[in-house]
Amino acid sequence: MDNNLRKLVRSLADTKGRRESGLFVAEGTKCIGDIAAMMTPKMVLATDAWWREHQGLDLGGEHHTVTRSDLERMSSLKTPSPVMAVFSQPQREADFTMPGRELVVALDRVQDPGNLGTIVRACDWWGVKTIWASQDTVDVWNPKVVQATMGSIARVSVCYVDLAEALAAQSDGVGVYGTFLDGESIYDCPLAAHGVIVMGNEGRGVSDEVARTVNRRLLIPRFPDAATDSGAESLNVAVATAITLAEFRRRMM
Amino acid sequence: MDNNLRKLVRSLADTKGRRESGLFVAEGTKCIGDIAAMMTPKMVLATDAWWREHQGLDLGGEHHTVTRSDLERMSSLKTPSPVMAVFSQPQREADFTMPGRELVVALDRVQDPGNLGTIVRACDWWGVKTIWASQDTVDVWNPKVVQATMGSIARVSVCYVDLAEALAAQSDGVGVYGTFLDGESIYDCPLAAHGVIVMGNEGRGVSDEVARTVNRRLLIPRFPDAATDSGAESLNVAVATAITLAEFRRRMM
Repeated sequence: MDNNLRKLVRSLADTKGRRESGLFVAEGTKCIGDIAAMMTPKMVLATDAWWREHQGLDLGGEHHTVTRSDLERMSSLKTPSPVMAVFSQPQREADFTMPGRELVVALDRVQDPGNLGTIVRACDWWGVKTIWASQDTVDVWNPKVVQATMGSIARVSVCYVDLAEALAAQSDGVGVYGTFLDGESIYDCPLAAHGVIVMGNEGRGVSDEVARTVNRRLLIPRFPDAATDSGAESLNVAVATAITLAEFRRRMM
Repeated sequence: MDNNLRKLVRSLADTKGRRESGLFVAEGTKCIGDIAAMMTPKMVLATDAWWREHQGLDLGGEHHTVTRSDLERMSSLKTPSPVMAVFSQPQREADFTMPGRELVVALDRVQDPGNLGTIVRACDWWGVKTIWASQDTVDVWNPKVVQATMGSIARVSVCYVDLAEALAAQSDGVGVYGTFLDGESIYDCPLAAHGVIVMGNEGRGVSDEVARTVNRRLLIPRFPDAATDSGAESLNVAVATAITLAEFRRRMM
C-alpha cells in the first residue's frame, strides 16, 4: 500500500498526529458501521476478504484494499481488525445551559482510555447525549477509547471545556452531583431528571476547584457498610458513573 | 541487580512463567500493602528512595534495592511503580455449595485484564468474597489484572473451575442469575441474598452450555427503553456486573 497513506493512519495513534490532521481512526465492522451512520468516512481500508464479505455495503469515502500485515502495522490494537476507517473529528461546541434541560456527565481528568470508552458506552445505554471533559482528560479520539465505546462514540458528544467555568456557570436550581465517600446514600437522595454528574480522576478524584461546585454529594453505598468492613476503598470511575446513571434513570421509570 | 532475579520477575508477566513458578507480581505501595496484609511476600524490590520513605514498614520477605531502570525493565505497566513485590499464588478450592449461603459471581470466558480487575474490585466493594472463573477466563495473576483490582485481589478469591459443572451442581432452590437483552427488568425481579450471578465474554456473552443453567434471566434496562432507541447494544461486562451487584445489595439494605 501507499507509504504516505500508511504513515497518515499510523500518525492517528498519537495525540499530536490527530491534532494536526483533525482526523481519527476506527476499527472493526460494527464500530465503523455505527460511526458511518452519522458521518461519511474519509477512507476505508480493508482486506480483500473483508471487501468481498461486505459487497454492497456502501460506507462512502475512498476505498482501499490492504493486506493483513499493512493493518497490523497501522493498528494500535492488540488484535487488529480486518477493517479500519478514517473520519474527520466532528467539531463540538458545549452548551452550558444544557443541564437545565437534560442530564450531562462531566469528567475531570479521567486518564485511562478504557475508562473513558466505557463511560461513553454507559452514557449511550442510559440516554446521556453529552459529556463535558476537562482539557486534561484523555483524548476521546484515541483509538483505544474509540474501540472501548463499541460504536457509542457515534451517538454521544464529548466536548472538551474548562470544567470549573462550565460548572460555575450553572444557575442555582441546577443539581451538580458528585460521588464522595462522605456523601449521602444515592438511594436516599432526590435525583432530578436533569443536571450534571461529575466524575474525577482514577487516583485523585475530582479537583478541589471542581469539587467546590458540587451541590449534591452522593455516596454509592458499600456492602456491608464502610464502618464494619475493611474492603475496597473506592470504585473504578466507569463503574461509579454507571451506578450513578442507572439510579438516576431508575427513578424516571 | 542480579540477572536471574530480573529474569524471574520478568517471567511473571507471562502466563507460562507464572504457571511454572506458582508466583505473581504486584506493583505499587497500596496494592502490595493490601496483599501483604493477607500473605507474606517472597521478595520486595524497590528503589533506594522508596525504602527510605517507608522505613519501619515491615512487609516480610527478602528485601532488594534496585534502580528505576531495573524496575522499568521488569514492569509490565506503562507507568512502573518504585516498588514491586513477588508473592506465591494462593491455592484456592471452590466450594460448590457456597451459593446456598452467599452471593458468588461466575465469569464465563472474560478476556480483558482490566475488566477482570474491575470486577474483582467491584466484588470487594459489594461484599462478594468468591468468584468462579471458567478455565478460559484471563489469568487473575496477570500483572494488569492485579493492578486493576487496586488491592482487592487480597480479599476476593478467584477460583478457576469447570463452570458448567459448578452451575449444574446447584440445588433447585439456588438462583442462577444472568443478564440478557430478553430478560425481565432487574428492578422488578425478586433477588435473593445468595446465589450465583453469571457474566459472559466481552463479545460473545455466556456460552450456550452455561446459559442453559441460568434460571433467573435479568435485564438491565436501557433508557429510554430499547424499543424507542437506537443506542448502545450492550454494556461493558464489568459495568453489568457492578449494576447487578449494586441492585442485589440495595435490596438487602
